[in-house]
Amino acid sequence: MTEFIPPGTQFCALPSPFPMKRGGALHGARIAYETWGTLNGARDNAILIVTGLSPDAHAASNAGNAEPGWWEQMVGPAKPIDSDRWFVICVNSLGSCKGSTGPASINPQTGETYRLDFPELSVEDGADAAAHVVRALGIERLACIIGNSMGGMTALAFMLRNPGLARSHINISGAAQALPFSIAIRSLQREAIRLDPDWNHGKYDDAHYPESGMRMARKLGVITYRSALEWDGRFGRVRLDSDHAGDDPFGLEFEVESYLEGHARRFVRRFDPNCYLYLSRSMDWFDLGEYGREQDGNRNDRAGNPGSGGVRAGLAGIRVERALAIGVQTDILFPLQQQEEIAEGLRAGGAYSEFLPLPSPQGHDAFLVDIARFGPAVAGFLATL
Amino acid sequence: MTEFIPPGTQFCALPSPFPMKRGGALHGARIAYETWGTLNGARDNAILIVTGLSPDAHAASNAGNAEPGWWEQMVGPAKPIDSDRWFVICVNSLGSCKGSTGPASINPQTGETYRLDFPELSVEDGADAAAHVVRALGIERLACIIGNSMGGMTALAFMLRNPGLARSHINISGAAQALPFSIAIRSLQREAIRLDPDWNHGKYDDAHYPESGMRMARKLGVITYRSALEWDGRFGRVRLDSDHAGDDPFGLEFEVESYLEGHARRFVRRFDPNCYLYLSRSMDWFDLGEYGREQDGNRNDRAGNPGSGGVRAGLAGIRVERALAIGVQTDILFPLQQQEEIAEGLRAGGAYSEFLPLPSPQGHDAFLVDIARFGPAVAGFLATL
Repeated sequence: MTEFIPPGTQFCALPSPFPMKRGGALHGARIAYETWGTLNGARDNAILIVTGLSPDAHAASNAGNAEPGWWEQMVGPAKPIDSDRWFVICVNSLGSCKGSTGPASINPQTGETYRLDFPELSVEDGADAAAHVVRALGIERLACIIGNSMGGMTALAFMLRNPGLARSHINISGAAQALPFSIAIRSLQREAIRLDPDWNHGKYDDAHYPESGMRMARKLGVITYRSALEWDGRFGRVRLDSDHAGDDPFGLEFEVESYLEGHARRFVRRFDPNCYLYLSRSMDWFDLGEYGREQDGNRNDRAGNPGSGGVRAGLAGIRVERALAIGVQTDILFPLQQQEEIAEGLRAGGAYSEFLPLPSPQGHDAFLVDIARFGPAVAGFLATL
Repeated sequence: MTEFIPPGTQFCALPSPFPMKRGGALHGARIAYETWGTLNGARDNAILIVTGLSPDAHAASNAGNAEPGWWEQMVGPAKPIDSDRWFVICVNSLGSCKGSTGPASINPQTGETYRLDFPELSVEDGADAAAHVVRALGIERLACIIGNSMGGMTALAFMLRNPGLARSHINISGAAQALPFSIAIRSLQREAIRLDPDWNHGKYDDAHYPESGMRMARKLGVITYRSALEWDGRFGRVRLDSDHAGDDPFGLEFEVESYLEGHARRFVRRFDPNCYLYLSRSMDWFDLGEYGREQDGNRNDRAGNPGSGGVRAGLAGIRVERALAIGVQTDILFPLQQQEEIAEGLRAGGAYSEFLPLPSPQGHDAFLVDIARFGPAVAGFLATL
C-alpha cells in the first residue's frame, strides 16, 4: 500500500515491458538507487551493492541524504568500501517498497496499487533490473558486485545472466539455493501475515493493516537473524524492571522479549506486507541448480542437497575473475556450508575464489554489526583489485 | 477447555491444598500416570519418566491401552527401559490436559474450568506433584528418574527438592535453566496463540477455538525441535505434486511446508491452548541458579550464563549417585552445552556423572526417533544400576 522512499533517492526506468522470469511483465517500472564517490573516466571503478530483503538503497550517508544508512560504517570516504576510490551504487530490490517498483506501487495499466496482481517475483528479476541500472549508468564492467543475504542470491543470478558485467564478487552470508530450514522459517513468516484478518488477501490499508502478522513475521526473522550464542551473553535471563513487566504472566518479562518487541515495533508499518510476501517467496524459489541442470544435464539428488550436481554446475557456469564468499559460523538461516559451496563452485568455474568463515557471534546479521571483522575482510579483498 | 485422556490412565490424588511455588494452591488436584512391569518386594526397581511439554502418560502400549505410545520403542518388555526388570511409571505433567489437573480442568471451588484462573505454574510444581505420586505408590527410592526436554528440568527440580528420592538420573536434552533463544521461541509461540482473536483471553470453546494461533505455535515448535541438517537430507527442495500445490504463489509448494502443515493439523485441537501457555511459560521461568544463589550466595553474572556460579551451585546441591546427561549436537532449543553443564554440575555434587553427546541429525526431538542411538545409551546406563 505505502512506499517508503528515503530523500535523495535516484531512479532508473526499466525497459517497458520488463519481462519477469515466471511470466508476465512490468510496464513503466523503475529501480531506486543511491551512489557514493565518482565514476572515473575509464568507467572501471564501479561497485554494485545488492541487499537483503528489507534494506533501502540508502546504505550510507551521502550528498543527497545525510542520515546514517544501514551499512554506514562500511560505505563512504576512507571506509572499507572506500568512496574515495570506488564509485559505489546501491539498488533497492525490485519488488521492494523503498522506491523500486513492487506490489505496493501503482500499476500504470489500471491506476490501482498492484497488491497481489503484481506478477510472481524471482530473485532473477531483481538481478536483471540491477543489471539494467548498471548499464544505464554507462558501466560495461563492474569492478565488483557485493551481495548480502538475499543480495548474495541476487549477485549470483546477476553474474550468471550477465557474463562479463562484473569482474569480481563478494558474497556475504548468501546462498546458491534455498534450503528447507530457511524455507520453513519464511513460510511461517508469510503464514503469520496471511492469517492476520487485516491482511485481507492483500487489500489492507493504513486503517486496517496486518500489524500483528507483521509483528510475528519480524520477531521470527530477528530470532533467525541473530544467534543463541550472542543472546546468551547479551540477555541471559535478565528481566525487565518490574515497572515494565506488569501483572500478566504471559506479558513481557525477560529482556530478550522486550528486544524482540522493539524490533517488531520499528519494522511494522515501515515495510509493506505484500512486498514482504513477494520478496520472501522469491528466496524460496531461488535455486542456481536450475541452471546447472539446464547446462549439462546434471540433476540434484532427490533432496537437492547443497554440493550436489546441479548447484555446483550452476555456480561453475558463472564467469568472474575473483571471488570471496564470507560466512558466519553462528548463521542458522544461511549456514556456513552454503558460502563454502559458493566459493568452491566459482573456483570450479575458473575464478580465483576464497572462502572466509568468520567467528562472529551475531549470526546471519553479523555483516551489519560486526564491522571489526567484516570491514577488514571486504577492504582486503577490494585492495587486491 | 477440553481434556484428552487416553484409556487406561490411572490417577493419583494430590494433597489438598497443593501449594504452588509462585503462590496460590490447588484443591482436589490429581496426576495422571501409567505403569509398565511390576514393583518388586524391595520396592527398589522403580523408574519414573517425566516428559516434555506435550506428551501424555501413555509412553508405550501396556495392559490398560494397547495403542502405541510416544516412546513405544523405548519402554516395555526387553526394550531399553525393560519392564521385565523395571517397574516403570510415566506421569502426565501437572498443568497439562492429558488427565493431570491443569488450566483445562474444572476448578472445584467454582465449578468452572480454571482457564487463566489457574495459579502460575512452575516446573517445580510438576516435580512436587510427581514426587507425591512416587511416594503414594509406596516407593521410597527410585532406581532412576528419566527426564526428556522439559522433563529434564522437572527431574532436576525433583531431585533437588526431594533428596534421596532418586538413586540415579538420566537427563535427555534437558537444561538447568532456560536461555534467551529458547525463551524467545516460546514467547513467540505464546504470542501467536494470544494474538488469535479466538483465544479471547482464554475464554475459547470448541466453536471458537484459536486454531490459527495453535497452528503457528506448533509449526514454530516443529522447526525448532528438528534440525536443518536433517531437513536438507529429508526434504531438500522437493516440491509437492502439482495437484497439491494449487495456483496460490504463497500456498504449500515445498514438501517441508506440507510436513509442517501435517504436524500442525495433528496437534491443533489435541492440546489445550491455555495449558500450552502455562507449561511454556513454566520453562522460561526455570532456573536452577535460584537454588545456587540461595545456597551459597553465588550469583550468575548479568547474562546468567550457563556454567556461571548459580547454576553450577544449584546442580551441585543435588544428591544422586549416578547420572547420565545425553544431548544432541543438532539441538538448537536445548543446546549441547546445557547437557554438559548438567553432567559437570552433578559431578561437582558428588555423583558419578557422564556426558554423552550424540551425533543424531534430528535435533531436540532425536530421543523420540533416533532409537538406534538413544536405546543403547539408556539401556547401557540402566544395566550399571
